Amino acid sequence: MAKPKKSPRPKAEPPKGFRDYFGTEVSERKAMLDQIAAVYHLYGFEALESSAVETVEALGKFLPDVDRPNEGVFAWQEADENDKGDWMALRYDLTAPLARVYAQHRNDLPMPYRRFAMGPVWRNEKPGPGRFRQFYQCDADTVGAPSVAADAEICAMLSDTLEAVGIPRGDYLIRINNRKVLNGVLEATGVTDDAQQADVLRTIDKFDKVGEAGVRELLGKGRLDASGAYIDGVGLTDAQAEPVLAFLTSKGATSADTLANLRAAIGDSAVGTEGVEELQTIATLLEAQGYAADRIVIDPSVVRGLGYYTGPVYEAELTFEIKDEKGRPRQFGSVAGGGRYNGLVQRFTGQEVPATGVSIGVDRLLAALRMKGRTAATPPGPVVVTVMDKARMSDYQQMVSELRAAGIRAEVYLGNPKNFGNQLKYADKRLSPVAIIQGSDEAERGVVQIKDLILGAKIAQSASLEEWKAQPAQREISRDDLVEEVRKCLEQ
Amino acid sequence: MAKPKKSPRPKAEPPKGFRDYFGTEVSERKAMLDQIAAVYHLYGFEALESSAVETVEALGKFLPDVDRPNEGVFAWQEADENDKGDWMALRYDLTAPLARVYAQHRNDLPMPYRRFAMGPVWRNEKPGPGRFRQFYQCDADTVGAPSVAADAEICAMLSDTLEAVGIPRGDYLIRINNRKVLNGVLEATGVTDDAQQADVLRTIDKFDKVGEAGVRELLGKGRLDASGAYIDGVGLTDAQAEPVLAFLTSKGATSADTLANLRAAIGDSAVGTEGVEELQTIATLLEAQGYAADRIVIDPSVVRGLGYYTGPVYEAELTFEIKDEKGRPRQFGSVAGGGRYNGLVQRFTGQEVPATGVSIGVDRLLAALRMKGRTAATPPGPVVVTVMDKARMSDYQQMVSELRAAGIRAEVYLGNPKNFGNQLKYADKRLSPVAIIQGSDEAERGVVQIKDLILGAKIAQSASLEEWKAQPAQREISRDDLVEEVRKCLEQ
Repeated sequence: MAKPKKSPRPKAEPPKGFRDYFGTEVSERKAMLDQIAAVYHLYGFEALESSAVETVEALGKFLPDVDRPNEGVFAWQEADENDKGDWMALRYDLTAPLARVYAQHRNDLPMPYRRFAMGPVWRNEKPGPGRFRQFYQCDADTVGAPSVAADAEICAMLSDTLEAVGIPRGDYLIRINNRKVLNGVLEATGVTDDAQQADVLRTIDKFDKVGEAGVRELLGKGRLDASGAYIDGVGLTDAQAEPVLAFLTSKGATSADTLANLRAAIGDSAVGTEGVEELQTIATLLEAQGYAADRIVIDPSVVRGLGYYTGPVYEAELTFEIKDEKGRPRQFGSVAGGGRYNGLVQRFTGQEVPATGVSIGVDRLLAALRMKGRTAATPPGPVVVTVMDKARMSDYQQMVSELRAAGIRAEVYLGNPKNFGNQLKYADKRLSPVAIIQGSDEAERGVVQIKDLILGAKIAQSASLEEWKAQPAQREISRDDLVEEVRKCLEQ
Repeated sequence: MAKPKKSPRPKAEPPKGFRDYFGTEVSERKAMLDQIAAVYHLYGFEALESSAVETVEALGKFLPDVDRPNEGVFAWQEADENDKGDWMALRYDLTAPLARVYAQHRNDLPMPYRRFAMGPVWRNEKPGPGRFRQFYQCDADTVGAPSVAADAEICAMLSDTLEAVGIPRGDYLIRINNRKVLNGVLEATGVTDDAQQADVLRTIDKFDKVGEAGVRELLGKGRLDASGAYIDGVGLTDAQAEPVLAFLTSKGATSADTLANLRAAIGDSAVGTEGVEELQTIATLLEAQGYAADRIVIDPSVVRGLGYYTGPVYEAELTFEIKDEKGRPRQFGSVAGGGRYNGLVQRFTGQEVPATGVSIGVDRLLAALRMKGRTAATPPGPVVVTVMDKARMSDYQQMVSELRAAGIRAEVYLGNPKNFGNQLKYADKRLSPVAIIQGSDEAERGVVQIKDLILGAKIAQSASLEEWKAQPAQREISRDDLVEEVRKCLEQ
């Protein structure tokens, strides 16, 4: 055996921003991912598990400083003779690796290629409360399908997925927009300067906060904000601002209304028209399949941040109310989002390959299911066979063997058996439904004590003396009836 | 949309030694891990998923050069203001993280703590054929149980696990030894010099290759090897070598015989006696539970390399024959191993905590199952609904909706529909059992063409003209019977 080291003891903790998941946390997440995978599979998507490590080159996240990769990823340089090895990094999402895999294997993969992936990703960001540097993503993407039928399919699948994991219809909404419509709106304003276009987009993002009148001021000369500070405007004329305001207020009672309003907002912009027509196609396909406005809607307020989206964008929001940290009611919010990104594979091959896909925020969706009490019931702990007599360990092992053979989770207490109280405390900590006790006296008589810990807890809480006497939580049973009697306790 | 970069295109490949897993490769492994987890759970083990990243300090793998961590791990330094951040690393196994987790959470965890873990680990080693730098491990450990009943339990569970995943009894053997017995043998030789002890252990490891006579020579004056080179011996006297040879030849017909031989080999060594008694206890417990010599045996030839084992060590071997790369028959060999390591948690807490556990080589076990044809049957590909008429995409989507609602995996072809041959080639590549075809003519008549691709492949291989006429692989059916007729094809 290695001798204890003389060096100072290491700290028993993970790096900052990392955490561990125990027991039910693991099994609940796994159950949810299994349900999601089943829906994805039903839709014809194939599993892909790419390597967690990629070359920084393939991930494509370099800082301007060419020596040191982006701080947003965990990266290191492979050691070689001259310390000039490749830079490698942990994947920061599942889309960049998909682009690499597709470019690498495109001659062998079906075309289109529908794939799903689930697993941890890593971000080298400042950790915060509830914000970890390793977390799960769960993605589905279709590569090589130019038709927006692929986008419609992902939205339908997302709807089915949310219901499959336990979010009831009415508690979620999938909202669809199209980057091309936004580009059409920009075209309709007549703004061609890149910086001014960016200002317009930033102002659009403030619509939720400042409303129509606020946006009108910000697009024009500017406005006084709540704190009394004056915010400079973008400097558009009223006529230039009009398409933006029309766009922002285009959400109608039905998708048909919304589409008509959008058509008006984009004027005769070619790209805008293409965008509206794509949305029209998506709406028609989804309606034909029965996905009505209670599940999926066209909604111009979806402006997803990522620069690489090139067509439809979509987002799933949970609409039920929760309380924020100050106790105020608010909607749970977004749990999944995605869209069409036609440029990612091109980085590798030079050829544009159409692709669209969605990413589910696994931890947020799981948190939502927990809040709604929709996660699978915590499975009971194991039956604990206590050790009264160390020399008779074989007998105790025999008991758990029988229980397991009957499919009942069971274990022998393997700590130091001297203090019997510790054994019962252990059974409590394990959330055991039943403890089994057999001393040498009981062994001679061919009986065991069966302690119903579920019933015991109930009795301790509320039972009267009479009830306690009528239904004792601990009984003596024949050793031969062990499995049957334990099963009775579990079936209560 | 981001403009294509001017910089040279990145290579579309993962870093050297990494790979991707597709479709069935992912689902087969998942199915096996699920089966393993079910057995572990039945035995009372709890899931743990620790972070993939640990501090190098916690992993405890420093080179003598204190600035740069061991090359065996992938490690990097956290960037902070002064570039003096902590070193972090990807875990290289699941045991070192368990020691950290247990030390960190020991006040909240049950004692003993039975936990299982499955997931990727990373090794910064030279990759080779079939040797990757990211691979799965699947471990079960019991921390805080001093009794060797915990070791016996792990061996029994390992036996149940192998049978659960599909290795039939008779095709595997779990062999148990004890480091203390080896230490007792060393004591019995009277060798006290550390370097000479290491030489003796190295010689023991050669027993398989050179046999009893060879070991006798190597322990003494040395021997001529097959190439004619003279190998220096350890320099033991005949009397000193005797316990080693007794130990190496102690395997008897039954565990009782083996134990008697071991007792003779270790003489009056205290630690050796303790070791033999522990093996005796394990053998007794396992026999009482019905694990006979066809499943688990005491076998002194198990000398597991890892320095940290302090008591019982165990190994699962698959005993069926395979052909090696030169076509010669050999046993499949080891798929799992483990043992007792009482020193790991102590690194963190200063207190020795007994622990024992096993690690399954996931990829090797999976390879074995594939060789034996024991993996789950490859699930069929999706039903492919082809697109004859792009304008009628809604109709095609409606068909897959119906099929999915009936639990049948189905998809619409989403590539460019112009070349119909490509659609059927796609269905072939997807291993589709059935393709559905509906042109506008069929749509008007309320029918679809159903193409049975499984039957079609059979007919193409072997059918006579008569058979082909009697049972055509493509038929016209009523649109209303779509689900029912597809189901019939799938049930063949």
